[in-house]
Amino acid sequence: MVLCSKRFIASLEASLTEVVVICGWILHLRELARTTFIVVKDCSGQVQCVVASELVRDLKLKLDEPLEIRGKIKPDKRAKLGFELEVIEINVLNQVSILPFNSSSDISDIGIETILAYRPLSLRHSEIGDIFRIQAAILQYFRQFLGARYFTEIVTSKIVSSGTEGGTNLFEIKYFERLAYLAQSPQFYKEYGVSGLERVFETGYVYRAEPHASSRHLTEYYSLDLEMGFINSAEEVIELERELLTFIFEQLNQNFADQLKHYRTKLLPSMLNVPTWEFTECLKLLNHHFGRNDLIDDLDPEAERQLCQLAEAETGVAALFVIGFPLSARPFYTYPRGHEGASQSFDLLFEGIEITTGGKRLHKREDLKQSLTNRNLNPASFENHLQMFELGMPPHGGLAIGLERLTSRILNLPNVRQASLYPRDRYRITP
Amino acid sequence: MVLCSKRFIASLEASLTEVVVICGWILHLRELARTTFIVVKDCSGQVQCVVASELVRDLKLKLDEPLEIRGKIKPDKRAKLGFELEVIEINVLNQVSILPFNSSSDISDIGIETILAYRPLSLRHSEIGDIFRIQAAILQYFRQFLGARYFTEIVTSKIVSSGTEGGTNLFEIKYFERLAYLAQSPQFYKEYGVSGLERVFETGYVYRAEPHASSRHLTEYYSLDLEMGFINSAEEVIELERELLTFIFEQLNQNFADQLKHYRTKLLPSMLNVPTWEFTECLKLLNHHFGRNDLIDDLDPEAERQLCQLAEAETGVAALFVIGFPLSARPFYTYPRGHEGASQSFDLLFEGIEITTGGKRLHKREDLKQSLTNRNLNPASFENHLQMFELGMPPHGGLAIGLERLTSRILNLPNVRQASLYPRDRYRITP
Repeated sequence: MVLCSKRFIASLEASLTEVVVICGWILHLRELARTTFIVVKDCSGQVQCVVASELVRDLKLKLDEPLEIRGKIKPDKRAKLGFELEVIEINVLNQVSILPFNSSSDISDIGIETILAYRPLSLRHSEIGDIFRIQAAILQYFRQFLGARYFTEIVTSKIVSSGTEGGTNLFEIKYFERLAYLAQSPQFYKEYGVSGLERVFETGYVYRAEPHASSRHLTEYYSLDLEMGFINSAEEVIELERELLTFIFEQLNQNFADQLKHYRTKLLPSMLNVPTWEFTECLKLLNHHFGRNDLIDDLDPEAERQLCQLAEAETGVAALFVIGFPLSARPFYTYPRGHEGASQSFDLLFEGIEITTGGKRLHKREDLKQSLTNRNLNPASFENHLQMFELGMPPHGGLAIGLERLTSRILNLPNVRQASLYPRDRYRITP
Repeated sequence: MVLCSKRFIASLEASLTEVVVICGWILHLRELARTTFIVVKDCSGQVQCVVASELVRDLKLKLDEPLEIRGKIKPDKRAKLGFELEVIEINVLNQVSILPFNSSSDISDIGIETILAYRPLSLRHSEIGDIFRIQAAILQYFRQFLGARYFTEIVTSKIVSSGTEGGTNLFEIKYFERLAYLAQSPQFYKEYGVSGLERVFETGYVYRAEPHASSRHLTEYYSLDLEMGFINSAEEVIELERELLTFIFEQLNQNFADQLKHYRTKLLPSMLNVPTWEFTECLKLLNHHFGRNDLIDDLDPEAERQLCQLAEAETGVAALFVIGFPLSARPFYTYPRGHEGASQSFDLLFEGIEITTGGKRLHKREDLKQSLTNRNLNPASFENHLQMFELGMPPHGGLAIGLERLTSRILNLPNVRQASLYPRDRYRITP
């Protein structure tokens, strides 16, 4: 048998008369006395294959075995596709061990540990595979939207000599004779990118050595970063994100309607009318509606849920931008907003959780230097960075979206680990 | 002035009558007694602005300063665009220091150290910016081609508990209380991906703690990886790469013709007829044509150049696939080819250098175990990996293309560092 003549299942048609070869995994198997029905699945679709039971009895076929099948199309109006495949020859390409579940099992009770330990198998399961097909689509739409608006994709080093925010929560790398660190963010490189190309984006991993082991944190997560030059205020970044997410959501609604239905009751909303609320206003609302008086310079997960609830009551969409976080609680490169210690830093809260942080940044060397001094950071140790702001840096801002968080909100997954193929946390570095 | 009404230069038209705001950098500046001409460049294009010299004298304008300009379109047939912008108001958005070059300078004599130390400025230079615009386009076409052929993009962890090839040349990470490593390759994860999704690709960094400081090596490089299931032989992967690169090259020829001309004399070739030569045959050719008798189980940079030369003489294109490298010189998961110690591992040599390694992989647990044993590696320490091959792993293969190498070959750049925004090598971790 010759594998190279393999066809994708999606390319089969009722009118084909020649012998065809398909490959795929056994998704369903029904062995009757005379006839055996095998539903075979590949990356393009699935087809029911029919074979005389005596021909396959010795093979002791098992679910999830990879097969190569030579056969002929047999039109059959009762079949989903309008035809079945009559098997001429069947070849089992690899053995499977005893499996804890199959790619056609009900997996609602299967825990994350088993899903990860059997990642190749869990990924073959259509429900779990869909998480990652949708994640791939998010990436595609993110890049497509930005590419059409003069953004250039950049790839920037993840090995850095110091942190972007003064050096906490960094993973240390032994780099030949010296120490280096895993990048917490492409922030500085995005800003240099703006000075060169005006609008840039990057999709890549960032690293946070945070000792959390919560359902919302990973030590390594995939960040959708963008940065744009010549802006006046953070609101322009917010407006871009409204349009960006609306585009991504519309594409997903169109192209993954069935898959989304499995995970969420409503289609994804338009984000065009998501409101922007001031941080101080949010604190008042939280106090008024929920009696919260424990928040000072940041929100907590409970407050994020509560604010989304209030936004949903008001707009029908459980999402809001919060702008004006206290300058002191945000990184040194944050641009101030007005004169009362507020900043042009914002978060996007979506369906109960923060999925974006963004803002306008300082673009003048002297302002950055002053800000470092105000925070008791030594400008001298940022000198190489500060110099980059003397080469024609325009006013600018940007944002970062956590891919796993966005995916898990879109699909209503309780744990961000479910949206990561190989999650890394405080305790996990395998598989 | 209001930045948010900023227009892209590309959106200006001779017929516009209202006052417009543009932003960008000073690319050229010509100050005459009465009139000053300022060519302003943004991410979309460039336009000549005209202003009475007395109005801007006090600003002491300098090349590469970021500006905001309010003005009116003035049709002028002598101008490139058919119009100029008559300046009403001009606003310098940031100061620039004394620069070693400008974004309009002749930079043919400027070394890589200066280019990197002034990355925001060098990136603004159109010749250098083009390297990275073309690199971004390569990424886009790579993903587009594969997406249309049932490949799903995956993102996989770069923090791993051991190496894919037994543990040499790994960067060590301090991961809380234990050690972890930076991934040398997504190889294992790609294979798991095939078992789940049949066809996967990933674009991401890989890490090699190799003490080279050559013009062709980086310790961190961006790898274009793909892996596909249900193949019969490595030749199917080779055929896919011929089509993939031909697609990428055609798109570049179409969309970046002018930019390519600056870097290479000929358009990029079709790769459809690039031949596949056996490794043993290559050794004979090298001996016959160049008197080489020093090569045993691998090629060296000189041999790569020599083989490309021979291929060009034969086919007109300086490229060839070399297949059948000795099994013993390739990783443990490599599939054998015939019975004489050869493997189904191949390289693609393109214009003098290896830009791809790929091949068919072992897909049966027992074969992998045997291969580990043959290499004096302990199968027990690969047990978690071996188990993944009992879940329905099909025959498969794939390849990896180094993005910086591919870019530097396409643009005829002598040093791979020129195709990396922030190269990392034995001695460099900044900027």
